[in-house]
Amino acid sequence: MEFVAGEYDVAVVGAGHAGCEAALACARLGLKTIVFAINLDSIGNMPCNPSIGGTGKGHLVREIDALGGEMGKAADATAIQVRILNRAKGPAVYSLRAQCDRAKYKLYMKRVLESQPNLDIRQGEVCDILVEDGKVTGVKLTTGAIFRAKAVVLATGTFLGGKVIIGETVYDSGPDGMHPAKYLTESLKRLGIEMMRFKTGTPARVHRKSLDFSKMQIQLGDEVITPFSFEHETLEIDQVPCYLTYTTEETHRIIRENLHRAPLFTGLIQGVGPRYCPSIEDKVVRFADKPRHQVFIEPMGRDTDEMYVQGMSTSLPEDVQIKMYRSVIGLENVQIMRPAYAIEYDCINPLQLEPTLQFKKIKGLFSAGQINGTSGYEEAAAQGIIAGINAAMYVKGKEMLVLDRSQAYIGVLIDDLVTKGTNEPYRIMTSRAEYRLILRQDNADLRLTEIGYRIGLISQERYEKFLQKKKMIEDEIERLKKTVIAPSEKVNKFLVEHGSSPISTGVRLSELLKRPELSYEALREIDPQRPDLPRSVKEEVEIEIKYEGYIKKQLQQIEQFKKLENKKIPDWVDYNQISGLSTEAKQKLSQIRPASIGQASRISGVSPADISVLLIWLEQAKKGSK
Amino acid sequence: MEFVAGEYDVAVVGAGHAGCEAALACARLGLKTIVFAINLDSIGNMPCNPSIGGTGKGHLVREIDALGGEMGKAADATAIQVRILNRAKGPAVYSLRAQCDRAKYKLYMKRVLESQPNLDIRQGEVCDILVEDGKVTGVKLTTGAIFRAKAVVLATGTFLGGKVIIGETVYDSGPDGMHPAKYLTESLKRLGIEMMRFKTGTPARVHRKSLDFSKMQIQLGDEVITPFSFEHETLEIDQVPCYLTYTTEETHRIIRENLHRAPLFTGLIQGVGPRYCPSIEDKVVRFADKPRHQVFIEPMGRDTDEMYVQGMSTSLPEDVQIKMYRSVIGLENVQIMRPAYAIEYDCINPLQLEPTLQFKKIKGLFSAGQINGTSGYEEAAAQGIIAGINAAMYVKGKEMLVLDRSQAYIGVLIDDLVTKGTNEPYRIMTSRAEYRLILRQDNADLRLTEIGYRIGLISQERYEKFLQKKKMIEDEIERLKKTVIAPSEKVNKFLVEHGSSPISTGVRLSELLKRPELSYEALREIDPQRPDLPRSVKEEVEIEIKYEGYIKKQLQQIEQFKKLENKKIPDWVDYNQISGLSTEAKQKLSQIRPASIGQASRISGVSPADISVLLIWLEQAKKGSK
Ligand SMILES: Cc1cc2nc3c(=O)[nH]c(=O)nc-3n(C[C@H](O)[C@H](O)[C@H](O)COP(=O)(O)OP(=O)(O)OC[C@H]3O[C@@H](n4cnc5c(N)ncnc54)[C@H](O)[C@@H]3O)c2cc1C
Ligand SMILES: Cc1cc2nc3c(=O)[nH]c(=O)nc-3n(C[C@H](O)[C@H](O)[C@H](O)COP(=O)(O)OP(=O)(O)OC[C@H]3O[C@@H](n4cnc5c(N)ncnc54)[C@H](O)[C@@H]3O)c2cc1C
Repeated sequence: MEFVAGEYDVAVVGAGHAGCEAALACARLGLKTIVFAINLDSIGNMPCNPSIGGTGKGHLVREIDALGGEMGKAADATAIQVRILNRAKGPAVYSLRAQCDRAKYKLYMKRVLESQPNLDIRQGEVCDILVEDGKVTGVKLTTGAIFRAKAVVLATGTFLGGKVIIGETVYDSGPDGMHPAKYLTESLKRLGIEMMRFKTGTPARVHRKSLDFSKMQIQLGDEVITPFSFEHETLEIDQVPCYLTYTTEETHRIIRENLHRAPLFTGLIQGVGPRYCPSIEDKVVRFADKPRHQVFIEPMGRDTDEMYVQGMSTSLPEDVQIKMYRSVIGLENVQIMRPAYAIEYDCINPLQLEPTLQFKKIKGLFSAGQINGTSGYEEAAAQGIIAGINAAMYVKGKEMLVLDRSQAYIGVLIDDLVTKGTNEPYRIMTSRAEYRLILRQDNADLRLTEIGYRIGLISQERYEKFLQKKKMIEDEIERLKKTVIAPSEKVNKFLVEHGSSPISTGVRLSELLKRPELSYEALREIDPQRPDLPRSVKEEVEIEIKYEGYIKKQLQQIEQFKKLENKKIPDWVDYNQISGLSTEAKQKLSQIRPASIGQASRISGVSPADISVLLIWLEQAKKGSK
Repeated sequence: MEFVAGEYDVAVVGAGHAGCEAALACARLGLKTIVFAINLDSIGNMPCNPSIGGTGKGHLVREIDALGGEMGKAADATAIQVRILNRAKGPAVYSLRAQCDRAKYKLYMKRVLESQPNLDIRQGEVCDILVEDGKVTGVKLTTGAIFRAKAVVLATGTFLGGKVIIGETVYDSGPDGMHPAKYLTESLKRLGIEMMRFKTGTPARVHRKSLDFSKMQIQLGDEVITPFSFEHETLEIDQVPCYLTYTTEETHRIIRENLHRAPLFTGLIQGVGPRYCPSIEDKVVRFADKPRHQVFIEPMGRDTDEMYVQGMSTSLPEDVQIKMYRSVIGLENVQIMRPAYAIEYDCINPLQLEPTLQFKKIKGLFSAGQINGTSGYEEAAAQGIIAGINAAMYVKGKEMLVLDRSQAYIGVLIDDLVTKGTNEPYRIMTSRAEYRLILRQDNADLRLTEIGYRIGLISQERYEKFLQKKKMIEDEIERLKKTVIAPSEKVNKFLVEHGSSPISTGVRLSELLKRPELSYEALREIDPQRPDLPRSVKEEVEIEIKYEGYIKKQLQQIEQFKKLENKKIPDWVDYNQISGLSTEAKQKLSQIRPASIGQASRISGVSPADISVLLIWLEQAKKGSK
């Protein structure tokens, strides 16, 4: 029996990483919000490695934090090891990564949701999205309960039509032994939404005491921890080690000999898997000449002996799994606690979304996370906060938020999704960003706090602290640019000691800092006027000055980019009427309906010639000739 | 594809309360053990109220502890409120009860299992029990993995063929959104095991902030906490309150008006529910004249706002649930986080078990917990430790452990199950025990530590501490019996002040202590020689002396009882050949095959006349005339 169980501004379907951020954003923006999960014990669950951040992903987490999201704080609160990756590769790709305590992360996130005013949490399976006259009006549970809502955010992760695959064994299931969502796919199809079928996989969890760490390389956390959240200046935790080991020829032989039983190759798995997060059988086939692959052994938490075997996700049959894992160095006697598995699930084709993450066809219906064809906790959370903000803006009748590719990795991620679509689980990578030197993890607050504040997710207090920090950075940069160091014995001794050439005329501190061999920290010795500054300020100052030239160049490129982004295309355009466009361009443009010439130019199949045609057409349209 | 994945002494199917105790017992007794769970996140899960102990149940927990089990320690480690119930009713029924933190309890139990030498933990669904020549040989997972084992303990709880029911909505599921076990029932049936279908239910979980506690009665924990485990002399925790409120006429009206939609009455629920843990609709129907029912609001943990609504379990449709809960005093604006539901599941008819919990028909196959037709965490754990011990004894070829009704509530529970069977989920109650004054919770260690030690689950160190305690008790009792208090002004003043009559001749301290108005604590004033003794010793001394008369009487009854228990019936008896037995007795005795005259006498349908016939037959058999 159907009945109305509640009236809300926003209903969020799913309390994974996307759903949590979306729900928190809406509630924090003052909207009456409800978030659903099939199982409340799985709020904020990490069904794969309990690790937050990493290359590109760490950037997303910091951007989420700068906008007022929760993921960074949750990672800080539950981290058991923290490292900055890519230290050797330069600050553009420095990436923060935390190994977290999976159980504590879930409890932390559930606690935050429970404590959030305006937010109700509800266990139940949403089976239907209610739409009237092209506008969303609510959701329905399998029990018949209808929750009316002005906006709805879909964040169903890998649950829609979930199917777990372990070798020949296949059964309906969500991740981590949860119920799958059995009905929502059909409801979305009835609404005319195009669905895709993707898959992802996870390795086995093994018992710590069955491993021989003496054969592995220990991986310790950073001595001084950089927190994820800009609200945390420092973070002190008792860190646990991870370990690095390798597959062997034997591993590869076992895999090759059992490829005829690998669901990935027998056709049992139909969903498309992530190319950049391949299973081990995939790696062994695609990189046939590689004699070994890295395997990281990472703890699932502080108070558990479960360990994650990173790099060896698989859907091979269990008997093959056992042999395969036991052939890895140090895993000779490994005791599997949970076998590896793959999961297939339904997701939407993200080309159906606007850059706001609203469905083009259904007003008030937003979508975020793995359901949009992505993979990864951080990718999910990044979309979640944007979908949440925009659902709130929609309800309030205010302008929605779109971050562009020059503002944030979040912008890159969403622009890629809604402009290019994806035919495999999409994950962020630093190589996807054109303006990497601008989109650094260290300056995410400088890029986005202002926006978070304007939207209402950054408190006055935090905003003022941020302005102070900004001023400190500017002041210090200015001071360094103004301070001239005169040549002296002391100074030149210092320079030579640091492998730097001595000076004979006065040189600005900023110039010295640009020398690769001199760090801001080292320069303290010849910089007696230096003020005492927080870690984050010093970091910023150093990068801004050291890379000033490159940064300037990228800022110029961004100006060019912005010009095309700002050439908005009216939404009534009928591309089929524009002569001169190629057939493919007409079709793609009509499908994707880009918001700007910039976006149009990134659509595959739309050529520079097509863009010229479009630009001319736009000029004419403006002149009122159309 | 089938393959052998491991060789074990004992395989335990299930890591709920029964499975955890069974697995720990086996591993601690030195056997190579593996325990399976469909989902490792649910080890030690409490799908209903996260409360351990209570009337009768508290006794079981202490007995488990005295035998070397884990439940008492887990409860102590995760308690958030502790009380002794029935304080007014005398020490026989004093019952310890702890409200625990559900999430922490699970993590604690998983940690203990992970840290236990000889024990492997494995996620997987057992689909088949392997038996050869009437002896168990192992189990098979759905992935084809075969784990050979000399003994197997079934502890599958409410997962077999699990079906969740909320009003008209029914779906396959284990408790708490877990996968059900879909195949094992068929495997058991193929082995000739008779299955039954039971059901149980749970109320909604609601958000703390939506409740009006000012309308409820607060329930605080005890000022001085008595721990569950005999290894803990004291326990200091920061306790949280619970609350008492009531249903209203309106609640009952809503329920009555919706009985036509109650699965319990429409026939949708076929499984038999627990009479002593009825759903609210059941209570409203059965006690139609009661104007209100008690409702306890109890926290699900320390760091969560989820609250349990004890007393209002239901399978009514969700719309009725909402109205019904909102009609309870203080719940007018209640926000449901998880709706109430009932679950139906397959269990075995426990008459197929020996008192050792081994299947009569299949050697090496044991069964414990909810699968045996019981309900409750403590009942499950109690059976679990016995099944575990006996699986170990079976593998070692040693004598199995059977506790009789005079030794422990565990004995009462198991004897009831295997002698009388049950046609509804069985739970322990103090009224089920004949020798309540002996089977107290305070003396569980005195009753059972010796046995736990002999079996090998109690360490030498703990045993020696226990012997010390026992000696302290005996010494103090003796001292009290010997110490004569002479009449004096001081003594008589003390007596009169405590509402007790003055003495004119010397009186032993033990005699004074027998006066109801005088406590051991109070008597300190006139007992200058009193040694400084631990809380638990003082408690024991007081009860043993105060109730000495009654205790003696029960000990005599137990002697009588033991006589019949010791009259063993050989297992080759053919009851159909014994003339003089009633037809019903013949049939029942053949089915149950009691181990002793005592057990035979408790079988319903076996009359005192039948017992006389049996006794005579036994005498003759002994004389060798048969
Ligand atoms: C086996 C496995 C392996 C993975 N491996 C990797 C990897 O190697 N690398 C990587 O980056 N990422 C990996 N991931 C992906 C990562 O877990 C997800 O990207 C991330 O969790 C997605 O977040 P989400 O918020 O979109 O969805 P989820 O975290 O899946 O959350 C979905 C939420 O929606 C709820 N829900 C779903 N349907 C309904 C409904 N109908 N009604 C009510 N509630 C509903 C669920 O209860 C849940 O709360 C893996 C995931 C799985 C399952
Ligand atoms: C909804 C609900 C309400 C309840 N209400 C009450 C109540 O009011 N009062 C009360 O006293 N008790 C109640 N109970 C009962 C109490 O929860 C159980 O009695 C107790 O948990 C049983 O413990 P157990 O160890 O037998 O099984 P469970 O705790 O259910 O554990 C079963 C274990 O077996 C595993 N398992 C099952 N099948 C397989 C398989 N094929 N392969 C591998 N692993 C398997 C599971 O993963 C799990 O680990 C309720 C239970 C439920 C679900």
